[in-house]
Amino acid sequence: MQLKSYLTDQKNILEPHILQFLQSKKNLAPDVPFLQDSLNRLEQFVTQGKMLRGILVLMSAEMFGREIGKSELNAAAALELSHSALLVHDDIMDNDLKRRGHPTIYAQYISEASESNVSDSKTYGISQGICVGDMSIFFAFELLSQVSGDDTQRSRLTKFYSEELAKVCAAQMQDVAFGHSKNEPSIEEILNVYVYKSGRYTFSLPLVMGAILAGRDGEIIAKLDTFGEKLGTIFQIKDDELGLFGEEEQIGKPVGSDIREDKKTIFRALLFKKATPEQKGKLNAIFGSEHLTMNEIEQIRELMKTSGVLDEVQETVESLFAEVKTILEQIDVVESYKNLLNDFIEYNVLRKV
Amino acid sequence: MQLKSYLTDQKNILEPHILQFLQSKKNLAPDVPFLQDSLNRLEQFVTQGKMLRGILVLMSAEMFGREIGKSELNAAAALELSHSALLVHDDIMDNDLKRRGHPTIYAQYISEASESNVSDSKTYGISQGICVGDMSIFFAFELLSQVSGDDTQRSRLTKFYSEELAKVCAAQMQDVAFGHSKNEPSIEEILNVYVYKSGRYTFSLPLVMGAILAGRDGEIIAKLDTFGEKLGTIFQIKDDELGLFGEEEQIGKPVGSDIREDKKTIFRALLFKKATPEQKGKLNAIFGSEHLTMNEIEQIRELMKTSGVLDEVQETVESLFAEVKTILEQIDVVESYKNLLNDFIEYNVLRKV
Repeated sequence: MQLKSYLTDQKNILEPHILQFLQSKKNLAPDVPFLQDSLNRLEQFVTQGKMLRGILVLMSAEMFGREIGKSELNAAAALELSHSALLVHDDIMDNDLKRRGHPTIYAQYISEASESNVSDSKTYGISQGICVGDMSIFFAFELLSQVSGDDTQRSRLTKFYSEELAKVCAAQMQDVAFGHSKNEPSIEEILNVYVYKSGRYTFSLPLVMGAILAGRDGEIIAKLDTFGEKLGTIFQIKDDELGLFGEEEQIGKPVGSDIREDKKTIFRALLFKKATPEQKGKLNAIFGSEHLTMNEIEQIRELMKTSGVLDEVQETVESLFAEVKTILEQIDVVESYKNLLNDFIEYNVLRKV
Repeated sequence: MQLKSYLTDQKNILEPHILQFLQSKKNLAPDVPFLQDSLNRLEQFVTQGKMLRGILVLMSAEMFGREIGKSELNAAAALELSHSALLVHDDIMDNDLKRRGHPTIYAQYISEASESNVSDSKTYGISQGICVGDMSIFFAFELLSQVSGDDTQRSRLTKFYSEELAKVCAAQMQDVAFGHSKNEPSIEEILNVYVYKSGRYTFSLPLVMGAILAGRDGEIIAKLDTFGEKLGTIFQIKDDELGLFGEEEQIGKPVGSDIREDKKTIFRALLFKKATPEQKGKLNAIFGSEHLTMNEIEQIRELMKTSGVLDEVQETVESLFAEVKTILEQIDVVESYKNLLNDFIEYNVLRKV
């Protein structure tokens, strides 16, 4: 199996399933036009993504010998709808007006308000964005409940799902606090957010969901849990690295955005840790600067290399990668899927471009 | 059965059930302290309310012959947690800093941010409030899935729940649009929001949930649906009336708040409809005025009476009430519960103080 075609094939199965579900809700309350309005926006929003989490649910279920049926698609669709909801809400928190080149849902409402007879367009956009997100979570609810299987299995699935999503919300709060605080978070605190927001949420959750759907329990669940945490941490570190060293067309946002936004990455934390008091003053002036220059970005890039931060992060990645490989060897799945997962790690995690 | 003691008794059963559930989640992620922080705030928030919706789930289940067990309590608790989430989010949309005399969750985060080393305390409060609400919805998810019964029943319950909550979100969007628009909504549009936000959500949803838990289906569900819509519309109209004519200690907010906020009530809409062009100019200056005087409030109150608005609304209420009574007679439940429901309508809907 080729990874690329596998991912495309799975998206081609999952996407119509989600769209059909959303379509089926459009006449739920014809006298409240905002319902259809929200569903139209969600349709666009959800299909713009890669559906990585949903696809991983399906991949994991297959990997453990379960054929993809309606239950697996419902579970994957539920995760994608909850994920869209969290992104819609995140865009409000980060004041992001664009995502994947398109106006975010909250930004759409702001623009429309500005063009019509609506007061306080920003609060209007925030409010409507909050509601669209909430609605998407409630629809995810229904999808997840439409998973067949015995009571114990469904109960385990839902409990795991609810708890992990609650943890993501808490980790997001920690991230919000980082963003608004003038205190320096510790490296441990930063890695902790990576574990929850990128590791458990993006990898452990869908992989475990797939395994539960395939009837697995016990040790394998714990292994997938740890596997996901480590893999996701690498994923996030690589994302940060790209944000720092990548070009605009690779990262989909202006070069230096993370520096301008003073994003609390592991790279930034290590750099501050290694910096002399004099350097710190300079770094403080550059990180978070609204008038960041290309020259300053280059200075930071250079300093990441010369100070040894890049090497140190690389070591962390390699050590995590070794752990990931070890766990992967212990997971007993069909060989072809193991290769797929290996390719996935190789192409979607280690080399993100 | 006395209504007052029944409501107290049911709250005394439901509240510890919710608190025990929230308590059980506190050690879910000890390394992300915001999880426990959110649960502590949710605990306070959820217990401050009357738990009307949750209690109605229980009352309805009993009314249709089902004994209250863990399933019924889980369903009622799920509704209360979702409801808390929606209130937490609503407070952000309405910029409400107090609810039931206590700081709202979003306001709590704003105050804490202002007192510490946190930038942009309002955005910080909005962001953390959004996350706490989301978390509460995800926990509701787990509770609702822990309802025993056959697949069809649980599926009906969850589908109804998800769809109604999605409709509430859409109706809230309509309400947000009313609040931000300089256009006058029609009376039909206003009543429509009442049907969804107060009728279906506060009454139809919990009553139908209880009936489904008690194994009912078919015609009775449709009857409860309509019953809830009408009853909730009366409830909302009475709430508006109180907001207009009540004193501060009755309504828990400053006299004239609804006029100051230019809330799009049925009273306001009818008054504008009946007003002469000259009066309209005056009304436009009073409704939404930040410097509203007691004299202006009295003018509006007087005009509501002399113009016949109060009488017209009263007629609407009486006609809705007659319909409610008729449906109630057709609902076949144990006599003692029918009396309870009658008392409920009498004391909690018609006379809200």
